[in-house]
Amino acid sequence: MKAVLITIGDEILSGDTVDTNSTFIAGQLKKIGIPVVQILTVADETDIIRKALQTACSLADLVFTTGGLGPTKDDRTKTAFAQFFNDELALDETTFQHLKNLFIKRKREHLLELNRPQAMVLSRARVFQNENGTAPCMMMDEQGKLVFCLPGVPYEVKPLMTDKIIPFLTERNSVNHLVTRSVSVVGIPESLLSEQIESWELALPPSISLSYLPVGSRIKLRLNCSGSDLEALSAQLDTEVKKLEPLIGDHVISWNGNEIQEILKEILITRQLTISTAESCTGGAVARLLTSVPGSSAYFLGGIIPYDYRKKIEILGVSAQTISEKTTVSAEVAQEMTLGCLTLFGTDIALSTTGVAGPSTDEFDNEVGTVYYSIRTKSFEKTQKLHLPHLHRNDFAQFVSQRVLQDLVEILVNTK
Amino acid sequence: MKAVLITIGDEILSGDTVDTNSTFIAGQLKKIGIPVVQILTVADETDIIRKALQTACSLADLVFTTGGLGPTKDDRTKTAFAQFFNDELALDETTFQHLKNLFIKRKREHLLELNRPQAMVLSRARVFQNENGTAPCMMMDEQGKLVFCLPGVPYEVKPLMTDKIIPFLTERNSVNHLVTRSVSVVGIPESLLSEQIESWELALPPSISLSYLPVGSRIKLRLNCSGSDLEALSAQLDTEVKKLEPLIGDHVISWNGNEIQEILKEILITRQLTISTAESCTGGAVARLLTSVPGSSAYFLGGIIPYDYRKKIEILGVSAQTISEKTTVSAEVAQEMTLGCLTLFGTDIALSTTGVAGPSTDEFDNEVGTVYYSIRTKSFEKTQKLHLPHLHRNDFAQFVSQRVLQDLVEILVNTK
Repeated sequence: MKAVLITIGDEILSGDTVDTNSTFIAGQLKKIGIPVVQILTVADETDIIRKALQTACSLADLVFTTGGLGPTKDDRTKTAFAQFFNDELALDETTFQHLKNLFIKRKREHLLELNRPQAMVLSRARVFQNENGTAPCMMMDEQGKLVFCLPGVPYEVKPLMTDKIIPFLTERNSVNHLVTRSVSVVGIPESLLSEQIESWELALPPSISLSYLPVGSRIKLRLNCSGSDLEALSAQLDTEVKKLEPLIGDHVISWNGNEIQEILKEILITRQLTISTAESCTGGAVARLLTSVPGSSAYFLGGIIPYDYRKKIEILGVSAQTISEKTTVSAEVAQEMTLGCLTLFGTDIALSTTGVAGPSTDEFDNEVGTVYYSIRTKSFEKTQKLHLPHLHRNDFAQFVSQRVLQDLVEILVNTK
Repeated sequence: MKAVLITIGDEILSGDTVDTNSTFIAGQLKKIGIPVVQILTVADETDIIRKALQTACSLADLVFTTGGLGPTKDDRTKTAFAQFFNDELALDETTFQHLKNLFIKRKREHLLELNRPQAMVLSRARVFQNENGTAPCMMMDEQGKLVFCLPGVPYEVKPLMTDKIIPFLTERNSVNHLVTRSVSVVGIPESLLSEQIESWELALPPSISLSYLPVGSRIKLRLNCSGSDLEALSAQLDTEVKKLEPLIGDHVISWNGNEIQEILKEILITRQLTISTAESCTGGAVARLLTSVPGSSAYFLGGIIPYDYRKKIEILGVSAQTISEKTTVSAEVAQEMTLGCLTLFGTDIALSTTGVAGPSTDEFDNEVGTVYYSIRTKSFEKTQKLHLPHLHRNDFAQFVSQRVLQDLVEILVNTK
């Protein structure tokens, strides 16, 4: 079974909105062993949607569309479905009742009539009710193809997928498993890494696929393997991963972690260490990355964002003299920030960032893209300078946050 | 002129990576009046890439591919290009020299030979050198089609687009302008809004396109208009937007702002107000959203993330008794957090969030998805409770942050 995703929406084509629905749906399907072979993003026009459905059905037996189901006039998805399947739209009483309950719950009963068209579904469709919005999910099951028509709001798509569609697909098909290992490598460029593991890579069994995923200065080697026997798949992957140890063992910071914040979580919990942050130019991005992991409250005690330089002095105890002599964008200030942060939060580890995210320079005329970060424990301190003038403001914050956590992981791994 | 984007990469199809390149490229092209009519995301396989090129060239005269240019074995884009254009790959001396300089700069000269294949380009291609990576951008100009082959790393794609490709396209073609207005509306559901402006919408000149973009509880009405006479376009949009005033004026929080953080910036700078944040469950997301805007240091003085409840007491002065009586997830704690935050940072406005992001409940057994936030000035305080159990951890933080800023904007707009 293979899937094609169709994203419908002018706001994606115009660059106003990032298509996260496809990422989510693809990730969910992968877990049950269904690969997505193509994603088509098309305009919200009846003819174009119909053609996309045709293409998708020629490529796969499972098709998902997202978007184009709102009550407003820029939405033509349902009409395209009706034409493609040669079916009619009819009011579905169950869906209308569901809609009514939703409006009562939201105290918007007076708007029910306006939303009546949302209860119109293809007469031959199976409906999956949307608990978090007004557009239901329709499914057509015809000529060996399953076609799902989902709304476009990510908050509505996610529960529809996890709570309704994935269980439905799992029950309908024999379950397939996809097993994945991610080996995280640092300190070696992609080209050299590829050379060092070339013979290993060429000898991989055909059932295992390998990809190189660069994330900041880390490279993730991802091995995928799918089949019906979960244990056999895991064992096979374990065997292959073990062979990497003598080849690149020194460069591996995690043998099976995915995101750097998850790798860090494992280490901090195992060693019972706590952490805090003091961020300037990253404006909360490091704390956000740390707290994006469930259970992070076990080790992340807190963070401070002393954005204004006076707050660095008042709250973190950075010396005014250091700032006037070295400016806020300096190794010394980064170091004093982690020192103050350790005291303020009483943690085992403190991280700090100070720099110029741009696009303009700061009040001290420091160069855009310059950043210093400090990593401090009670007995150790490392300061690092980066120069990233090519990164846009938000990419800069993302990149620096990833890099700081990665550096910390490397330090912790090397001081086992 | 129309464009089609092709995203090449198994990591997008597998749901491991979000495709932000397409969003960026589409946004850049829109600015010079070139609409993207389709985005195709395909696997990293020679045949499939070749077919995608064929489809793209049948739909548009401008094609961009991203991805599939790394030095490792999972990359087949160049071969597909060579086959599609019936051309050969040949070593380009200029590109090799550029690569050499890059490696010297990065102190990785010893790796140059390994990366030699990256200097192989189609013999008939025009090359745009990549200042931030090893894969250059090739452009083929054949049979009335321009086809750009870009790397996949977003940090490399962005400067290639803004500094090289957009200027090239602007010079080559007569410049077209796309003028956009975004009217932000709150407090009215999409269906009712659509009804209230129906006659206005139906009377819009055909040159203007309208879309409804829901962002949290705000709806953005986006009007697009393209043509060669910039002034005429602006005037036309102004005329149409003015007609909305009597229809929905009460619900409009911004007549031309795009992101809520940009709308807020305008208001704060105009009124010379400063702001600070105290975040628990959002873990820095509110501060991050505020600081994502260039120039935010003019009004954002800082933030605190007292993630551990003891830090709420120690740093913000939240009363231990309030916490033990009401738990940290309560209106009272949210209110004491903004009170402490105003004092700590000495700002005019303070924002706070406290809640349970999930997926597990907190130490006080509060329900997952519950959040209280407080908005406080020296003379005003508003507390709001939200219940968002359907949102995944990171969506939760995003949603709450957007909502808090939006609420603040509404309060500020209504207290002019």
